Parts: sequence; C-alpha cells; structure tokens
Amino acid sequence: MFTESGTQSPHHVVIIGGGFGGLYATKALGSAPVKVTLIDKRNFHLFQPLLYQVATGGLSPGDISSPLRAVLSRNKNTEVLMGEVTDVDPEQKTIKLRDKSLSYDTLIVATGVSHHYFGNDQWSEQAPGLKTVEDALEMRRRIFLAFEAAEKETDPEKRRAWLTFVIAGGGPTGVELAGALAELAYSTLKHDFRNIDTSEARILLLEGMERILPPYPPELSAKAQASLEKLGVMVQTNTLVTNIEGDRVTVRRGDQTEEIPTQTVLWAAGMKASGMGAVLQNCAGAELDRAGRVIVSQDLSLANHPNIFVIGDLANFPHQDDKPLPGVAPVAMQEGQYVANLIKRRLQGQTLKPFRYFNYGSLAVIGRHAAVVDFGMVKFSGFLAWLTWIFIHIYFLIEFDNKLLVLIQWGWNYFTRKRGARLITGAEALPEVEVEVPDTYQTTVKV
Amino acid sequence: MFTESGTQSPHHVVIIGGGFGGLYATKALGSAPVKVTLIDKRNFHLFQPLLYQVATGGLSPGDISSPLRAVLSRNKNTEVLMGEVTDVDPEQKTIKLRDKSLSYDTLIVATGVSHHYFGNDQWSEQAPGLKTVEDALEMRRRIFLAFEAAEKETDPEKRRAWLTFVIAGGGPTGVELAGALAELAYSTLKHDFRNIDTSEARILLLEGMERILPPYPPELSAKAQASLEKLGVMVQTNTLVTNIEGDRVTVRRGDQTEEIPTQTVLWAAGMKASGMGAVLQNCAGAELDRAGRVIVSQDLSLANHPNIFVIGDLANFPHQDDKPLPGVAPVAMQEGQYVANLIKRRLQGQTLKPFRYFNYGSLAVIGRHAAVVDFGMVKFSGFLAWLTWIFIHIYFLIEFDNKLLVLIQWGWNYFTRKRGARLITGAEALPEVEVEVPDTYQTTVKV
Repeated sequence: MFTESGTQSPHHVVIIGGGFGGLYATKALGSAPVKVTLIDKRNFHLFQPLLYQVATGGLSPGDISSPLRAVLSRNKNTEVLMGEVTDVDPEQKTIKLRDKSLSYDTLIVATGVSHHYFGNDQWSEQAPGLKTVEDALEMRRRIFLAFEAAEKETDPEKRRAWLTFVIAGGGPTGVELAGALAELAYSTLKHDFRNIDTSEARILLLEGMERILPPYPPELSAKAQASLEKLGVMVQTNTLVTNIEGDRVTVRRGDQTEEIPTQTVLWAAGMKASGMGAVLQNCAGAELDRAGRVIVSQDLSLANHPNIFVIGDLANFPHQDDKPLPGVAPVAMQEGQYVANLIKRRLQGQTLKPFRYFNYGSLAVIGRHAAVVDFGMVKFSGFLAWLTWIFIHIYFLIEFDNKLLVLIQWGWNYFTRKRGARLITGAEALPEVEVEVPDTYQTTVKV
Repeated sequence: MFTESGTQSPHHVVIIGGGFGGLYATKALGSAPVKVTLIDKRNFHLFQPLLYQVATGGLSPGDISSPLRAVLSRNKNTEVLMGEVTDVDPEQKTIKLRDKSLSYDTLIVATGVSHHYFGNDQWSEQAPGLKTVEDALEMRRRIFLAFEAAEKETDPEKRRAWLTFVIAGGGPTGVELAGALAELAYSTLKHDFRNIDTSEARILLLEGMERILPPYPPELSAKAQASLEKLGVMVQTNTLVTNIEGDRVTVRRGDQTEEIPTQTVLWAAGMKASGMGAVLQNCAGAELDRAGRVIVSQDLSLANHPNIFVIGDLANFPHQDDKPLPGVAPVAMQEGQYVANLIKRRLQGQTLKPFRYFNYGSLAVIGRHAAVVDFGMVKFSGFLAWLTWIFIHIYFLIEFDNKLLVLIQWGWNYFTRKRGARLITGAEALPEVEVEVPDTYQTTVKV
C-alpha cells in the first residue's frame, strides 16, 4: 500500500481532458498523496457554457478560457501535459500518446463529446457547430459577414437569404444562440448599416422534437418559446433538417418538406462521443450507448476495470432515474470530485458508496433579460431567472479569474446593448464566394 | 459650389483605411455637409499600439478593437464598406474595388504600412511580424507553444533553443515585446511548469543601429536599455540579422557573425508602405520614398492632385524639421483632422494654412512599471513614465468603449502578474514538427 513517506513511487493518476470533469478531479486531488498528470490537447480550460457569447461578439475567447497551468500552478503534485492520447493498454496500465507511452495506476478519461451531423459530415462546411474556440470564432465570422454581405446585396431575394439565420437544434445552446442573435439583429446592430434594416433579419430556431429544451419540464419549454418569440425568434418545432446545401436548408415537418433560403446555418443539434469511447471499447471492452458514450458502473469505473474511470459528457451514468445524466457542467464537476474522493479512500483501503448526482437545477438564458430555471421543486423564468443565470455563471467563473472581466463586459453589453468583440478574423483560411453588390461596388466576401 | 439644400448630390469624400488617420478624418467629417464613404478590408478599427499585449497574452483582440460600424453608427452622413481598393482613376475621379468602381469628389488614402523583411520574404515563415490581429495571435501561439515544447524537451541544447526568444528590431514595438516577454518568462509563468525553469529563458533584443529607440533622444534610449536589462532582457545593438533559417538566427556585429539557436523569432524591424503607394505612383505620378511611402505636399495632398490626400503611416510629410514625421498614431490623428478641416474650408471657398504636427511627446513602455517618455522639453522614465503611458493609452481607448475592460485587465495583470489570454489557438492551420520529450511521452507540437 502506498504511504507518503514510503520509498515506492507515489500512486500515479492520469487524467485525460481538462474540461469541467477532468479539471475538478485534478483540483480535488491537489492535496492528495498522489502524482497527477493532466493531459489535454489544448493549453486552456474552456468555459463552454458561455461559448455562444463569443460566437455572437459579446465576449472574447480569453474571457471564458483559463490556462490550465495557471489554474493548477499551486498543485505541486500535478503535471500538465499538452498532447493527444491515441490508445490505452489496461493490462500494462499505460496510455499511448503519439510515439511515447505513459504508465498510470488510475486512469480518468474525461474527453467529452463533439457535435456531429447524424452521418451528414458534408454539412459541417455550411453549418459550423459550437464546441471549440475556433468554432465560436468561425460562427462569429459568418454571422457578422452575413450582415456585411446583406448591406452590399441589391437582389432582394439574395439579401433576404443573407439576413436569414437558421439555428438547427432547440437545446440550451440553440436557444441561447437564438436569443443572442435576436438581440444582435434587433437592437445592437440597428443603427450600424445604411442599406439594410437589420430588424428585417429572420432568426429561425429548428427543433426536431415537439418542444424546445426537451430535457426541461414542458411548462418551461413553453415559457422559453414564448420569450424567444417575444424577442423575434421564429421557433419551429417538429421540424427536422433533412439537407443543407449551398444557400438553402431543407426541412421536413410531418410529411411536408420546405426549402429555406439562407446563407448562415448554425449547428446546435447533434452530439457524438469523443474517440476515447471507441478506444476504451476496443481495449477494455467498454459498453457504449448509441451516441458512443461509455456506460459506466455505479462508481463511474469501467466494468472489470476498477482503476479506469469515465466522467463528464463522455460518461453515460444510467443508475439514477433510469435515464443517463445530462451532459452539463455540474454533472461533470460532481463526477470529477466523486472519483477524486474515491481514489483517496481507496489509498486508505476504503471505498465510497455509489455516485449520486445532486441536481441543483437547470438553466437556459434567452436574450437580454429572460431565462428559464428548473430547480426541481422551484421552476421560474423571466428576469429573475436571468439574474440567477448570470449569478451562477459568474460564480463558477470565479474559479478562473475572469469573473470581473465578464461581469464588466456583460454590464456594458446589458446597459449599452453593445457587443464589442464583433471581429471578423481569420478569413484568409476560408473559400471565397462572389457577392452581388449595389452601385457601390462588388467585392469578394469569404464565407 | 455645393449647398446643403441644393439639388446636386453632396460632395462625396471617400476614405480608404479605418486606422487612426482614416477614422479620425471620418469622425471629423461627421457633422459636415458631405457624404462620407469609409472603406476598410476589416470590419473593425485596431488599436495597434497595444497589439503587443495581445501577442503576449495580456489582452484579447476584442479588447483593443472596435467595430467601425459601431464607432460611426451616429454619423448619418457616413457609410462603411468592407472591401479592398485595387486602383484609382484621378481623371474619372473613381476608385476600383475588385469588379466595381465608386466615384469620389475628394479621396483620402490612409492604408498605412505593413512589416517587411528587407527582401527576405522567406523569413516571414519563421519570424512573424506584428501588424494585424492574426499576426498577434500567431505570435501568442508561438510564444506559449515554445514553453510547452521546452517543458517536454530532454535534450538540453534543444530545450535552450525553445527557451530562446529573439526579437529583431529595437523600436517601440520590439522594446515593448521584449519587456512583456521578460515579465512572462521571469514572473507570470514561473510556477506553471514542472520540468523547466522559465527564468532560464533568454530574451534577446537585436537592434541594427547603435542604440534602441533610435527616434528618441540618446539619454532615453540608454534609460530604456537599462530598464530592459534590469528585467533580464539581453539588448544587442549594432547587431544586424543576416539570416533566419530553421532553428537559428544569424547575426552580424561589425565584421563578426554569430549563430543564435532559437525556435522563436519575433519580427519588429522592417516597415514597407501598403500597395496603395504604388497605385498612386502609377495613376497620379505620386513621388515615393525608399520605404514606398507617398511624399505629400504641405497640405497632405498629392502634387497636381489637390483632391487626393495621403495621411498616416503611408504619408511622408517632409516639410517639418526636415525629416519625415514618425509613423505613430498621434501624427495620423492630427493629419486626419487637418484634412477633414481643409475639406470643410474648401466647401466654403476657403483654405487652410499648411499642416503642422504638434508633438505631444513619444512614449514606450518597458515591462511592468517602467517606460520612457519624451515630451520635448520634458523627458523622464521609470514608474512615472509608465503611469503616463497607461493614462494616455487608456485615454485614447475611451474613444472605443474598451477603456474599462483594458483598465481592469491591466490592473489584474499588474497586481497578480497573471496573463489570462494565453490561449494557443488556430494551431490546425500550421505545419507540424516533431519534438523530443522526456520519459513522459512524445507528441507533435505545431510550430
């Protein structure tokens, strides 16, 4: 058994992924008599719940990111490695990173999920998702370029297509994007253009199910839809995207199909597990669900592999109210802390009772001063819900030093309706299409 | 003659470039009885003097940028166009943008300068410059990746090369970059790594002339060098970069040459005029200086073309103290305001006396609390100069709503020595090189 003063090398916990799950596990092990190695492809933790604010010019990437090394600099037992894990060997207790391998005593896999297109990967070109900083900057680029292109467009139909924004997916991300876009078009940008009236922009939120925010109670879904419609968003439920091509989206409602001319499609629909799910299936016989998430035991470990844990969005924890826990930050945080505690207990020859998720509630924000909150017993919406949402997000940002900045920027945005971070950047990297323009001139807009 | 209530269309002023010169001209014409069209390739004004803060993770691009449309939304006589001017026809009084043309009555060209490599454009791959947001993010990426690579490197020589940062050019940009890098390596990152001691990093500032900040008085150059050396920067004057290749820089001092092994070269040396200089030479016989800048008349117009003005970094104004005015923001602002006033006077059948630049002074900041200030009569350095620098930059940022954010972030950086915006982003776009790494593992770092 490991002892701190012992001669043998300390118990080595390797954590893959610096999201909410991996980061909270790492922090919780900071004082434990173990050696921790946190591996991530990026050098920063990303506060993903606010990524939609970057995509709509409200915040800068730096405001919602924290360098992993800075967050963990005081954890002297922790090493941060920038790299990508390609394989795991449970027998040898090693992981493979490109051309080198690293041994572990306990492995925590928290590599999360990415968006996907239900087998239509060709859509990714026209309809970017929202998982990474690069995704958000690409969305931001397209949103603001669409207004620029509309300003130059003479053909009314084409202009209408530039001013039509389609958001595929009525989950929290889609709802928050739609609300932010409505603010942008109907208040922030109102006085910025000369040839177009941005309030003519159409923002369509498409949801395949019969209501938006499906995981929420029906009455909150209804409130959310009402709030969005009040902001000017057109909510279309029972509406499936069947094709995205060129400058149009094809949708199906029941047995009717419709073509929506648009230049801007934002993808907030599909989700698929990161590649580590398949890796664990191959090497450790892990059972995966339809989305490729790893079905974990009651202590979040793999069946027959008590020293391999899967937490966060990548984990499917089915042992509570039958359905898997939602892929939200609080679940990942609690799972990370649970596994950290379990490891500490095991080092003392003890164990922990099965993991239970305590649901503090769910929130989604809808534009400038509306949100919906579901605290189980308590459900409410509107301005109070919005304040709650702000408070909770700021509260969790405290961890990462950015609280003050974001508060200032939000306060500024709120009172001035301005969005300072509306930069169109990195255009070079993208293909060019011709845009017709009025008597002013014709130019090439990258989209 | 134009009259506001007249039937003829208003006098049309076309301004090319939304930097300090173009933006200040546009604002000064906001109340004039003219139609203004501001054309820029980007949709935002960039506060270039702080770009080095983005390159070193102190600020986010959004903090030092302002959407041109937002800054000018209240100027109802002003139209903003995102586009690129390719040619000018002084006879027809039209400009060409890709496939369309636009007519003007008065043309103001303020397209500035870009960095260049004295005919060694192949250096741009290894040694990025610092003129655009993309440049700054690329520098940021390389700087922080260099520390990551050093952390993984076992070979002491290679590690030393990763921890050697060479800045070519001892002007304000080079000096400010060197100071910020020293802070980064010697305080901000000190506790963030486990395998390397970031205080072993070497920061070399190379200047070809006999002193840094050549445009400043000698005593301030000396003070600046002393401050930099106090911060740990190695200042090498009379040192010319003769080659940049692979992982080394070749320099010449007198008749001695030296090879400096390094993975990170930051270019702050050369400057060349934007392409509009050559365009004006071809179409209007404009006289260019060696850097390609347009030599302008005493009223900033082109000889024989009284309705074509060139302002800002692109202009060479030789009529004051014999030598051309420096390429700094205050010169551009004053030139923009002068031309705006001259246009208003001309509309009233009057004119203005020749342009005179009033030099409020020059500043350069050196790290956390040192700077040099030259107010002509008054010259000082150290903490007071630093405060002055902060105040003046914040003051000019007020124009652009970002003052509070930057102040907060600076306050934060100053008191905590943290730099929150240390994101390594956009790596995908870049070539891969193998990095040797310790018993941990080997991975591929993009550099």
